[in-house]
Amino acid sequence: MKVLIINCGSSSLKYQIIDSESEQVEAKGICERIGLDGRLTYQPTGGEKEVTDAPMPTHNEAITLVLKALVNPKTGVLKSLDEIQAIGHRVLHGGAKLTESRIVDDEVIAAIDEASDLGPLHNPANLIGIRACQKLMPGKPNVAVFDTSFGMTLPEYAYRYAIPTKYYDKYKIRRYGFHGTSHSFVSKETIKFLGLDPDNSKVIVCHLGNGASITAVKNSKCVDTSMGLTPLEGLVMGTRSGDLDPAILQYICNHEKIDINEMLRILNKESGVMALSNGLSSDFRDLEEAMDNGNTAAGLAIDAFCYRVAKYVGAYVAAMNGVDAITFTGGIGENAGIVRKKVLAHLGYLGIAMDEEQNMKRGERFILSTKDSKVTVSVIPTNEELAICRETVALVNAQ
Amino acid sequence: MKVLIINCGSSSLKYQIIDSESEQVEAKGICERIGLDGRLTYQPTGGEKEVTDAPMPTHNEAITLVLKALVNPKTGVLKSLDEIQAIGHRVLHGGAKLTESRIVDDEVIAAIDEASDLGPLHNPANLIGIRACQKLMPGKPNVAVFDTSFGMTLPEYAYRYAIPTKYYDKYKIRRYGFHGTSHSFVSKETIKFLGLDPDNSKVIVCHLGNGASITAVKNSKCVDTSMGLTPLEGLVMGTRSGDLDPAILQYICNHEKIDINEMLRILNKESGVMALSNGLSSDFRDLEEAMDNGNTAAGLAIDAFCYRVAKYVGAYVAAMNGVDAITFTGGIGENAGIVRKKVLAHLGYLGIAMDEEQNMKRGERFILSTKDSKVTVSVIPTNEELAICRETVALVNAQ
Repeated sequence: MKVLIINCGSSSLKYQIIDSESEQVEAKGICERIGLDGRLTYQPTGGEKEVTDAPMPTHNEAITLVLKALVNPKTGVLKSLDEIQAIGHRVLHGGAKLTESRIVDDEVIAAIDEASDLGPLHNPANLIGIRACQKLMPGKPNVAVFDTSFGMTLPEYAYRYAIPTKYYDKYKIRRYGFHGTSHSFVSKETIKFLGLDPDNSKVIVCHLGNGASITAVKNSKCVDTSMGLTPLEGLVMGTRSGDLDPAILQYICNHEKIDINEMLRILNKESGVMALSNGLSSDFRDLEEAMDNGNTAAGLAIDAFCYRVAKYVGAYVAAMNGVDAITFTGGIGENAGIVRKKVLAHLGYLGIAMDEEQNMKRGERFILSTKDSKVTVSVIPTNEELAICRETVALVNAQ
Repeated sequence: MKVLIINCGSSSLKYQIIDSESEQVEAKGICERIGLDGRLTYQPTGGEKEVTDAPMPTHNEAITLVLKALVNPKTGVLKSLDEIQAIGHRVLHGGAKLTESRIVDDEVIAAIDEASDLGPLHNPANLIGIRACQKLMPGKPNVAVFDTSFGMTLPEYAYRYAIPTKYYDKYKIRRYGFHGTSHSFVSKETIKFLGLDPDNSKVIVCHLGNGASITAVKNSKCVDTSMGLTPLEGLVMGTRSGDLDPAILQYICNHEKIDINEMLRILNKESGVMALSNGLSSDFRDLEEAMDNGNTAAGLAIDAFCYRVAKYVGAYVAAMNGVDAITFTGGIGENAGIVRKKVLAHLGYLGIAMDEEQNMKRGERFILSTKDSKVTVSVIPTNEELAICRETVALVNAQ
């Protein structure tokens, strides 16, 4: 089955065509500057990347251009649009109602719309993408895959915040967790890769990228996750603070005479390793290079990042009363050997031993721990599009 | 040496007379409703508690009444005030300058005053107590013991928040930690009690009371602590939320149309287990009884509290790459067997085994783990006044 994967932002749209049998990407690209001027990037697998400036007043025109490129007689990978049998959409926030992937119908659309309050930057854009596909490819099944649904299996004592119950009842303020598609995919791949028992295993997935989060996955179900109501909570990230004393917000708002919305903008956009490195960079390649050249702020940023990861891993081992496997994924997790090394340096008490030579590897699937390590540590590249494809095919086939 | 220990709040003053050789309390009590009407409670050790209504317009009158009671010919424990050789004061916030206990001089007073911005409810009251003692007992050494100083040995990657550096430079926003006197005392007592090496040991202290915090103590130095800039961060507490997604503050402020100060009042006064139990109680005796009677909200509150403790312990084991001893203290830690049991249920992977019979004990010093447990778990009642006494005597003797 050919599946079109769509990931809509407010002014951009990423897409892939995946053949679900071979699980190979046949073409991929991005539409940018939607609503401004518009630019389409298209690349068939093994072929040249084409960049075309083209007016895209709305996501409808963007998707129309994507579909045209896919059936272009010269470089297209499809003979006809009829080959597309389903469309899988990444949707940020499923709210409390959408706890697993769903074939889109009016009820699902209404629930995504309702959850827009919790994902105000993403959900409306995700809906625009769904509606555009419904209009341009009528009758084809659209599947919504939620970034939050993997976190919906947390026990109540883990997902509730210790704030008045009325905020949970009225607004559904709880821990949701994000990067769910990635954590779900990588935890399943870990179990397969290492031959663990899906019904009797304890896996910790460290998804470390510009956004970063960790999950505890017990018997294939997520039992804790570091992001919360929003993707701000938890780890130190590229430009996000992660955890901090909530009283800091009051202190800074009052002393700097800024309001809570400006404060949250700073915590989301101007914090994290970018802030700790004194504005040097949110990119770990830059930070590592600067640290090697003696920049102490860059070193502090890397150390604070790794220390927070190690503490979360430790906390999640306690959450599950043990761990069988720890997996690194995401841009930093897959590539930054220094981060893996510094994190694992805290975890010797678990009987973990790292293979220094293996740790030189980047961006591929491998086992990082030594043969006699008591916990198997791996690197498994994430693939959210493939995960969405698999979810989409499973739901369409079950119809 | 007889030491007067003073713990001043804005309208109250707790005091003890301790004999530093025997380390016995000779008398203790509290002044309440200072500035309103005034009430003195006084109790010599082994004697009756006396409660006297007496006008206390300021802390000066309160301390005057305490001193009178101490030398009262009938029930007083001192022949003359000359017997008091030093006064030890609990001070909440030492800021970034006061990193250990100090004999009070003008510089110390100025630094406590400067840190009032970080401890606005406590530091001004603590200063009033110091000044009243200086006035009423001129020439006697006053020692300030800071609740924050034990946390000043954290490494920078543990005490810095991932927010713009200017907030650290300008306001000294960092992790300070509180309950330092208790954590310092209990970690030292743990090392003595278990015969550990002060220079080669890893101890985790869980101070669980209405306020609650955990420290990681490596080689007798605090390397991490769960409270932060203020005592709000970290564990779920009686009425405090502890950790949460900072974006929750924005969401609630905007949707409920409240300002950040009202939001922080709610997080400090109306949250924690009180909120999770739907306003039932912040007292664990009430919660346990309600849970036993089938109240699910009370059960949720206890579970969420214990789960957070277990996660912090797990995180701090990672922070130190191992642990030799875990100690419970504070009102809940010393008395609530159910909390100790639920926390330790998460920690079997550390080789911890709990002695169920020992866990029936309350409010005394004992070893809770079995003989073959790989980590020794103890209960050690805290004694902040004795800790302040010891610090005071050490500084006065070193003069």
